[in-house]
Amino acid sequence: MGSSFGTSLKVSVFGQSHAPAIGCVVEGLPAGFKVDLDALARLMARRAPGSGPWATKRSEADEPRILSGLNAEGETCGTPLAIVIENADVRSKDYDDIARIPRPGHADFTAYAKWGSAHDVRGGGIFSGRLTAPLVAAGGIALQMLEAKGVRIGAHLARVAGVDDEALRSTDTSAEGTALLTAQLDALAERSFPVIDEGAGERIRAAIEEARLAGDSVGGIVECVACGLPAGIGGPIYDGIESAIARIAFGIPAVKGIEFGAGFRAADMRGSESNDPWCVRDGKVVPAKNDAGGNLGGITTGAPVSFRIAIKPTSSIAIEQDSVDLTTLEPAKLVVSGRHDPCIAPRAVPVAEAAMALALLDSWLSFPGTNSPFALLG
Amino acid sequence: MGSSFGTSLKVSVFGQSHAPAIGCVVEGLPAGFKVDLDALARLMARRAPGSGPWATKRSEADEPRILSGLNAEGETCGTPLAIVIENADVRSKDYDDIARIPRPGHADFTAYAKWGSAHDVRGGGIFSGRLTAPLVAAGGIALQMLEAKGVRIGAHLARVAGVDDEALRSTDTSAEGTALLTAQLDALAERSFPVIDEGAGERIRAAIEEARLAGDSVGGIVECVACGLPAGIGGPIYDGIESAIARIAFGIPAVKGIEFGAGFRAADMRGSESNDPWCVRDGKVVPAKNDAGGNLGGITTGAPVSFRIAIKPTSSIAIEQDSVDLTTLEPAKLVVSGRHDPCIAPRAVPVAEAAMALALLDSWLSFPGTNSPFALLG
Amino acid sequence: MGSSFGTSLKVSVFGQSHAPAIGCVVEGLPAGFKVDLDALARLMARRAPGSGPWATKRSEADEPRILSGLNAEGETCGTPLAIVIENADVRSKDYDDIARIPRPGHADFTAYAKWGSAHDVRGGGIFSGRLTAPLVAAGGIALQMLEAKGVRIGAHLARVAGVDDEALRSTDTSAEGTALLTAQLDALAERSFPVIDEGAGERIRAAIEEARLAGDSVGGIVECVACGLPAGIGGPIYDGIESAIARIAFGIPAVKGIEFGAGFRAADMRGSESNDPWCVRDGKVVPAKNDAGGNLGGITTGAPVSFRIAIKPTSSIAIEQDSVDLTTLEPAKLVVSGRHDPCIAPRAVPVAEAAMALALLDSWLSFPGTNSPFALLG
Amino acid sequence: MGSSFGTSLKVSVFGQSHAPAIGCVVEGLPAGFKVDLDALARLMARRAPGSGPWATKRSEADEPRILSGLNAEGETCGTPLAIVIENADVRSKDYDDIARIPRPGHADFTAYAKWGSAHDVRGGGIFSGRLTAPLVAAGGIALQMLEAKGVRIGAHLARVAGVDDEALRSTDTSAEGTALLTAQLDALAERSFPVIDEGAGERIRAAIEEARLAGDSVGGIVECVACGLPAGIGGPIYDGIESAIARIAFGIPAVKGIEFGAGFRAADMRGSESNDPWCVRDGKVVPAKNDAGGNLGGITTGAPVSFRIAIKPTSSIAIEQDSVDLTTLEPAKLVVSGRHDPCIAPRAVPVAEAAMALALLDSWLSFPGTNSPFALLG
Repeated sequence: MGSSFGTSLKVSVFGQSHAPAIGCVVEGLPAGFKVDLDALARLMARRAPGSGPWATKRSEADEPRILSGLNAEGETCGTPLAIVIENADVRSKDYDDIARIPRPGHADFTAYAKWGSAHDVRGGGIFSGRLTAPLVAAGGIALQMLEAKGVRIGAHLARVAGVDDEALRSTDTSAEGTALLTAQLDALAERSFPVIDEGAGERIRAAIEEARLAGDSVGGIVECVACGLPAGIGGPIYDGIESAIARIAFGIPAVKGIEFGAGFRAADMRGSESNDPWCVRDGKVVPAKNDAGGNLGGITTGAPVSFRIAIKPTSSIAIEQDSVDLTTLEPAKLVVSGRHDPCIAPRAVPVAEAAMALALLDSWLSFPGTNSPFALLG
Repeated sequence: MGSSFGTSLKVSVFGQSHAPAIGCVVEGLPAGFKVDLDALARLMARRAPGSGPWATKRSEADEPRILSGLNAEGETCGTPLAIVIENADVRSKDYDDIARIPRPGHADFTAYAKWGSAHDVRGGGIFSGRLTAPLVAAGGIALQMLEAKGVRIGAHLARVAGVDDEALRSTDTSAEGTALLTAQLDALAERSFPVIDEGAGERIRAAIEEARLAGDSVGGIVECVACGLPAGIGGPIYDGIESAIARIAFGIPAVKGIEFGAGFRAADMRGSESNDPWCVRDGKVVPAKNDAGGNLGGITTGAPVSFRIAIKPTSSIAIEQDSVDLTTLEPAKLVVSGRHDPCIAPRAVPVAEAAMALALLDSWLSFPGTNSPFALLG
Repeated sequence: MGSSFGTSLKVSVFGQSHAPAIGCVVEGLPAGFKVDLDALARLMARRAPGSGPWATKRSEADEPRILSGLNAEGETCGTPLAIVIENADVRSKDYDDIARIPRPGHADFTAYAKWGSAHDVRGGGIFSGRLTAPLVAAGGIALQMLEAKGVRIGAHLARVAGVDDEALRSTDTSAEGTALLTAQLDALAERSFPVIDEGAGERIRAAIEEARLAGDSVGGIVECVACGLPAGIGGPIYDGIESAIARIAFGIPAVKGIEFGAGFRAADMRGSESNDPWCVRDGKVVPAKNDAGGNLGGITTGAPVSFRIAIKPTSSIAIEQDSVDLTTLEPAKLVVSGRHDPCIAPRAVPVAEAAMALALLDSWLSFPGTNSPFALLG
Repeated sequence: MGSSFGTSLKVSVFGQSHAPAIGCVVEGLPAGFKVDLDALARLMARRAPGSGPWATKRSEADEPRILSGLNAEGETCGTPLAIVIENADVRSKDYDDIARIPRPGHADFTAYAKWGSAHDVRGGGIFSGRLTAPLVAAGGIALQMLEAKGVRIGAHLARVAGVDDEALRSTDTSAEGTALLTAQLDALAERSFPVIDEGAGERIRAAIEEARLAGDSVGGIVECVACGLPAGIGGPIYDGIESAIARIAFGIPAVKGIEFGAGFRAADMRGSESNDPWCVRDGKVVPAKNDAGGNLGGITTGAPVSFRIAIKPTSSIAIEQDSVDLTTLEPAKLVVSGRHDPCIAPRAVPVAEAAMALALLDSWLSFPGTNSPFALLG
């Protein structure tokens, strides 16, 4: 039962919601990089529970402890980097109910179909959203390494409960467009609630609060971009960056769709509209616009890589739902109690950034641009 | 530079559009299965070029030759199965133009950024849609193995050029809904053009022809379902079936998005609407409806697995486009000549089925349901 | 920089000698198995430092803490099992000398050539023999799972400093031979010093002590057998059990050779002598003798699997040695101080058992016998 | 059922002795390298059957056909390189006997235990020595790439039937020692029979002929060295070059042991004898002698990498042997007819070189020396 991914940069995630700890092992990080532990903590705080009314009240410090992979100076030393995050606020309540009556929209039943009664049902086990914390920890280090190479990654809530935020300007590759996108990313870096348009942010928070009061939940769309990558990163066919990003993205609980660049809108375009013409800017060949989402054939063009992921509403709701008692196969009613986010999308924003960073750094290390692999032989 | 995927069932695709041949090696096929070569040829014919006015005129028999992996009786014998498809209709024309002036929407430039002049530009090299032929060959064998276990897979054009086909009835898990879905799949099996609603099919063909006459192209959406899988298939987190399917799907040229079940629509739902309640039918626990697309936490529920992929319009169009001369970095105009599909979506239908089959058979073999792995020790 | 292995059962080892901790993540363990933590602790104690005059005086409790992978009942729950062992007795001494003057026989210089000054030189970093502790922890669980299926694994010091122990009776597949081998394994289970012939044990300990007093060290050979495996386990060619065992074995520091069955002696045999004839015993086809080491073509025959590994003398010796000052490239003399085993072979015995167990359980899960893989589809 | 290996450079071997063809797919070859097809053919001819009285009389041209992976100029183009070798001389005889009465020393029975009657018994199926032809083809390309970087690989028969050839001078790292080793490799390049000492060669051929006339077979030891590698290649622990080479080596049929450098002799040494002191020669840090076989901690030292593999005598002998009729479980006598090498070791010499080349090139690409991985980000 695997929970690892990556080619040259491999991440193995472990943990269950109520196990002693969660964490990950990251193999293949380049050596000699000084990890900024404060910046890592700030990124993790953005994902951590309890940071707003839209979030679960579970109280977890989510302090990552790095067990290995750094030398005495705090630099990556070439060996696997292991990160552990303790599960502190684990309530020792009775999970017999969940084990018996699977929650709609959750993996309780499918895990039972897979592992029988051996499944660790407590808190959702490995299927808990909490398992995104190690992803963010690993991704945070990848982010720092990419930033050191001039890459910038940012994400926001593109849409929640039918309310749209301003879109990121990732399709305009002109100097003006690039400046606008930079300004958007700068603004997002300042926001406690990850939207560009603060008015939209207020309406989104109101919609989430309304759903919460109704005992219900709402979904949303997270948009993420990465700027500053050179052209030529990614492998052909099944090792393209879209494949790499999508594989990780669907490992984030509640993600039900992903699209790159124009995505599903491209299905309604004509080729003459969809194709991005080539031009030269600052002596470099670049696409004159960027409906391709920064890659062709899975390989970067040099324009911003962009994706959008659809996040379904939180499955755990306070409204009574229909289920089945697995011990009797009789119908059963279920009210999910406990501490749950009425909307998981805001906390998914740093997770999307981490997923993007890991996929791109791995692609860069595994499938770099011109002549690099052979140069290794030099 | 990899082009392989899979965990227990591994597929390594090779070939370029104008190399001597294309093909694949499939490792991990269960032994003792008699491959139906005629059924395989029929599936491949659905993908082959030249089968309709919407398709390229390149003439390729696309006859798969199985070099290994079968015993004297034509059964899988446990060893890697290698399939080769010769490239017969390779025109020995001059590709200097493409090497010099990259086509918009194609991987010509990104491949150049990756491999420099070593890239095999002829016919698009490894990025040619022709590389889906080995995928269909491998997937066709997986399909047969799944069918022998009661699984049925079918796909159709959900939408082309703004024209919608009837949707597949994959969300209604009642006996009635299942019968309707079966009838749809039966109807599709008879169609030469892969739509359920023949009126929609006529309008789609007309829209494609119109685009072709304008020297342009159109995109579309392919929907695919798999029925009859037991619950419990798939690994947790990054090894879920959504991750597995998505990784292969983005290896199909022109795919720009994928969604499972309600997909992007789920982002606008409330939890009380999105959640599929559990019920018991015929003594089995099943979801009462199927907005989850047949899986929760990446593990099958027993309901139909469904996905939709967005396919951008064919990049190769006869209309003049802007590009750059890589040797001078001066602007250049480009008219793509050659044999190209004005819409690739119809030929992508069997490719989607093959991708679904490979991802699901691999998940089944790698991450099966209750107690199976330990049973292996018995 | 990877340090993981395995196909269905994957082990990722992490840690450095003086990092906060060492450990591993084990993916793919069958669910529903109750881990015996006491038995695991006993196995680890056999490898732990400080257990005899032949061993380093570093004091480490080596208590494995299992962070994940078990459910509330202490059974494997299908998710990755993470084990952490704290590095407690880390002396904060100055490692500038080692960083500057590489020790002969150690990886100090090669790690420097690989990672430059980023290498964590403290205590040898990832190259420390201490990194076999996580291997033993992971292997101990595999051992328990194999034992539950009737497999028994045992190892001993076949030879140290020119003194031979009695060989394990793994070539005689008769009922009598099997009884003798069982008696040998029973005896070894009682021994604090892992030899069959206690007289040889005394001579070995004397030779180790003599080397220690001379400030020198000695090497040895460890022999390991696994009995009770069914025929048919292992993959063809590069996935055979010999490849799997050898890959792990050479990950154990100081191992310089491995042979299976008759091994290097087979090179001097004739085919008529080397071949194991087939016969029927108790209704089963078995080899009448077992010079093949329990496998043919990398696949188990049902006879005991046996290997011998050559272990070079401990590199860290108190005698002055010639080296180089890396900062000046001038010759330098070196006396290795610190706590080192004058012979590592005794502590390598449980490590060999763990390596055997992991390779065999992985092979069993990944490449089982007749019809099993296809049965998964049932 | 896998038959692939490698990390960045992946080789997937396919084929059975009597399938239409055998071959392999090689992923990850650096782009832009012109393959010398004549040199490749010469290497393959050294392995091909029928080249001497010690070899099987099966007549196979063994001409590798490269289906993909090269551009129009015959250079590697970054995509997977597929090689096919047709099985021409396949005799359509009856294999019912072998299927019924397993040959001692062969994988007939173990393959039956694995795959039941689905196993392709014809000619030994995938377990045939013929499957080393694709390994040599892939390795031949790796060899050429390594040679272009100043690496030289050579192997010889160190011992056959008790007759020793002169050993390769791989432990003397002085200028004089290096010159002697070069002279040995030069001499071997001229030999049709791969020994350094031609007198030993005559005695070996006589011993093989004597065994052949007796209907029997003999085994031997092949020694292989690689000179000219820089220090720092290889990953830590389980990704060291010894693990990588050993994994491939045990995929060569009949190999029963492998040792690096002093190997099993090191088990009898003291540390003061075994350790290679460091010194400076020509401004570079090198080991003053090379008992370590060119690597420490699995990472190259810069001295020659050397290994020796033990090859058991050919299992197929003309002398009557004891076996079992699988259909009745009654004892049965067996005389193996057909075309078999009385000693497989001479043909294993180029196979050892190919295995060394693939393992080293993969290690170089996957785990290169100082700062290289991070440099990729530049």
